[in-house]
Amino acid sequence: MTERATDTPLPAGSTIGILGGGQLGRMLSAAASRLGLRCHIYEPGANPPAADVAHALTTASYDDHEALAAFAASVDVVTYEFENIPAPALDLLADSAPIRPGRRALEVSQDRLTEKTFLCDLGLRTAPFVACDDAGALRDALAQIGPRGILKTRRFGYDGKGQVRLDAPDQCEDAIAQMAGAPAILEGFVDFSAEVSVIGARSASGDIACFDPGENEHRDGILHRTLVPSRLSPSLRSDAVLLAARILNALDYVGVMGVELFVTPDGLVVNEIAPRVHNSGHWTQLGCAVDQFEQHIRAVAGWPLGDGKRHADVEMLNLIGDDILTAHEHAGQTGTQLHLYGKAEARPGRKMGHINRLRSAG
Amino acid sequence: MTERATDTPLPAGSTIGILGGGQLGRMLSAAASRLGLRCHIYEPGANPPAADVAHALTTASYDDHEALAAFAASVDVVTYEFENIPAPALDLLADSAPIRPGRRALEVSQDRLTEKTFLCDLGLRTAPFVACDDAGALRDALAQIGPRGILKTRRFGYDGKGQVRLDAPDQCEDAIAQMAGAPAILEGFVDFSAEVSVIGARSASGDIACFDPGENEHRDGILHRTLVPSRLSPSLRSDAVLLAARILNALDYVGVMGVELFVTPDGLVVNEIAPRVHNSGHWTQLGCAVDQFEQHIRAVAGWPLGDGKRHADVEMLNLIGDDILTAHEHAGQTGTQLHLYGKAEARPGRKMGHINRLRSAG
Repeated sequence: MTERATDTPLPAGSTIGILGGGQLGRMLSAAASRLGLRCHIYEPGANPPAADVAHALTTASYDDHEALAAFAASVDVVTYEFENIPAPALDLLADSAPIRPGRRALEVSQDRLTEKTFLCDLGLRTAPFVACDDAGALRDALAQIGPRGILKTRRFGYDGKGQVRLDAPDQCEDAIAQMAGAPAILEGFVDFSAEVSVIGARSASGDIACFDPGENEHRDGILHRTLVPSRLSPSLRSDAVLLAARILNALDYVGVMGVELFVTPDGLVVNEIAPRVHNSGHWTQLGCAVDQFEQHIRAVAGWPLGDGKRHADVEMLNLIGDDILTAHEHAGQTGTQLHLYGKAEARPGRKMGHINRLRSAG
Repeated sequence: MTERATDTPLPAGSTIGILGGGQLGRMLSAAASRLGLRCHIYEPGANPPAADVAHALTTASYDDHEALAAFAASVDVVTYEFENIPAPALDLLADSAPIRPGRRALEVSQDRLTEKTFLCDLGLRTAPFVACDDAGALRDALAQIGPRGILKTRRFGYDGKGQVRLDAPDQCEDAIAQMAGAPAILEGFVDFSAEVSVIGARSASGDIACFDPGENEHRDGILHRTLVPSRLSPSLRSDAVLLAARILNALDYVGVMGVELFVTPDGLVVNEIAPRVHNSGHWTQLGCAVDQFEQHIRAVAGWPLGDGKRHADVEMLNLIGDDILTAHEHAGQTGTQLHLYGKAEARPGRKMGHINRLRSAG
């Protein structure tokens, strides 16, 4: 089903189908309720966090075509909280309901090679990259863009998973072995001083609104902290927003997208794009009248975008694994908002919640 | 069950039972999700707004003892979004789960005579009042506190329902007839320049935090608009907050309470108290890091209260009945937050949603 250029806003009581029942789905569903809308969550796993605030839940796998068809028939529009949705599931859903953001955004972001090629074709800069599926190709690629690089699976990677760092040609055999036969891409290192991200939104009628870029800090390959405002110069800040807008338009995108950028001496380099609400946009819950979750729901529901202007300086801190044990200590602090995802078990590396804190609160 | 002075905070995944499935329950349930908590809604009516964001829903009347018992057994604590809960239902619930705010707050606020007597015993000022259940008593009461007054049912009144204005003794027979046999109270008029309300919260460990008083405007007996900051002088503002704290302590209260106050030349007069989150506290969703809904959930869940300091000037505007048709016009405005309750039918006088707007946005 093709995206329509404009649309009638979904009325109160309409249902948005969300693929994926994690914390992003949970916060999307709570945001939808503010607009009088309901959410139906589709999730293979048991007791998903999003079910606590959803109107309906389907527990089924992405190859259960009967469940997918029933789900699609029960909703007015389908959106998602993660990008790795199997194409056959999308084909089936698209027969009954519009999918927003559209298929092109998913095709591009599901494959690192397709994504980087798309971005370069748009005239944007990325890390140097070469597809390489065997050790010989990898050695050639390393010689070309090295001496160091990161070999990544083209698909299904997140939070540093499916990645191997390479410092020398003799590591090539082992690195390819670790890909376990999955198609891979070698990415060269980018010499960057900071990582920022732009959370951009595009409405069904083509209006674009971007949140103020946030500055990100990672630990062990997982986002640790986002600060707004970032230390970007005014001209780089506007470059970042224009660049995000260009990507949104090129994909005829409807919804919220996260665009991760490296800040280099030569300007901004796109790290990756995520066709969904993004961890680095959680600060908008405290800093803006309308946050990224509601902005996404507005877009996919055909509503006008809301005012995402930043009205406060905010620090967002992820609570990973056992960090959750400190939640009560943060709970009463000045200018502090706590967001817990209702996950029972705090495994290492698992995102359990986050804190938004007014930076003026000190 | 008596309230414990302190408590262990409910862990993530715990369930809060909410009596009543309207918009207040809906916003309470969304707030609970931010703390990793689930809500189970108990509501006699079909398709209640709160069900869209609840983990579980029981559709049953307040005299269905089997349903009440099963509900109480499934939750860790019971709270409510309205005060007119039948006492036998509360007796039954209290056998299985703590009820917060406690029974005393409900007893006081369910009956206008008990409430006013309680407030006067605390040394606070109210409108003059006399209980009167027949025309003779009403004539005497009018002579005592008149010449004008409002006859109100002692119980089950809200938004101006169950009230008759009196300007002359010859209206007494008719006014009593309109009470249809219900016990009634005559309240004298208070000459006030403004109505303000304090939304106060008290935690299970006895900590108190009050939101900045808001100034209210009514239309046709229903709240139309709340503005913060109010035009209260600094000394009246602190009087208002101290007065609310006094009521909270006297009731050994756990949760959020709305205290409506008249501003008179002689100081503040208590209009009424509501043992729940309150329409005049909706502005906190935009103006504070932690809003009234989350503050209530924190209190009843035994958590520390959050930071309710006002960080912005806000106007809250109710969308009543057909006002809802203008929702899309407001949706894209600067500094504007829209909150719709998902009600399908816009009957006259029905609260359909509200808008929070930054006053700096003009």
